[in-house]
Amino acid sequence: MVNFQPATLDRVFAALADPTRRALLERLEREEALSISDLARPLPISLPAVMKHLDVLEGAGLIARRKQGRTVTCRLTAAPMEDAMGWLARYQRFWTESLDRLAQFVEAPK
Amino acid sequence: MVNFQPATLDRVFAALADPTRRALLERLEREEALSISDLARPLPISLPAVMKHLDVLEGAGLIARRKQGRTVTCRLTAAPMEDAMGWLARYQRFWTESLDRLAQFVEAPK
Repeated sequence: MVNFQPATLDRVFAALADPTRRALLERLEREEALSISDLARPLPISLPAVMKHLDVLEGAGLIARRKQGRTVTCRLTAAPMEDAMGWLARYQRFWTESLDRLAQFVEAPK
Repeated sequence: MVNFQPATLDRVFAALADPTRRALLERLEREEALSISDLARPLPISLPAVMKHLDVLEGAGLIARRKQGRTVTCRLTAAPMEDAMGWLARYQRFWTESLDRLAQFVEAPK
């Protein structure tokens, strides 16, 4: 059995429970590195609010920030998501089984 | 692209961010249906505290409760986890790629 770090899972799942934080991660999935002002630009919230969300993401190990001159750049560090997905994967049989049962039902001779 | 219901994802990830709630789901993964008192027995928290966690899980659509006579039975309803896993799956290439790079590094001719 895989041993998950409970505190890490707590922080990762809590970080993912907010749509703004998921939107920030989605942007960093598409673009390798972005400055905080680039990340903040399309969002309808203040820069300090964006900074707070970035703090939560960094606390969960999901992003890394680096200062380059006067610009702070953010990158995705997706590794902690692997544990979260591993935790969810054990439940996969529940929805796979129901799809299998549906397939059997649909394909059954009439 | 898959469209996720943001509010559902918020509730599912928030529900999973607590170790007691994950422990409740883990028990319901192993045993098909359990009464609330069976679920509460091994936990070091009060019955009302367990009930509050079950409310959160039910609000996220992760469990269903049914009254049978004087007993309330809980079952896992894992379907909303599929969306959560689908959301995480798009980041899978990040940790797969780093493992591939590690493998290349380890297997490289010396």
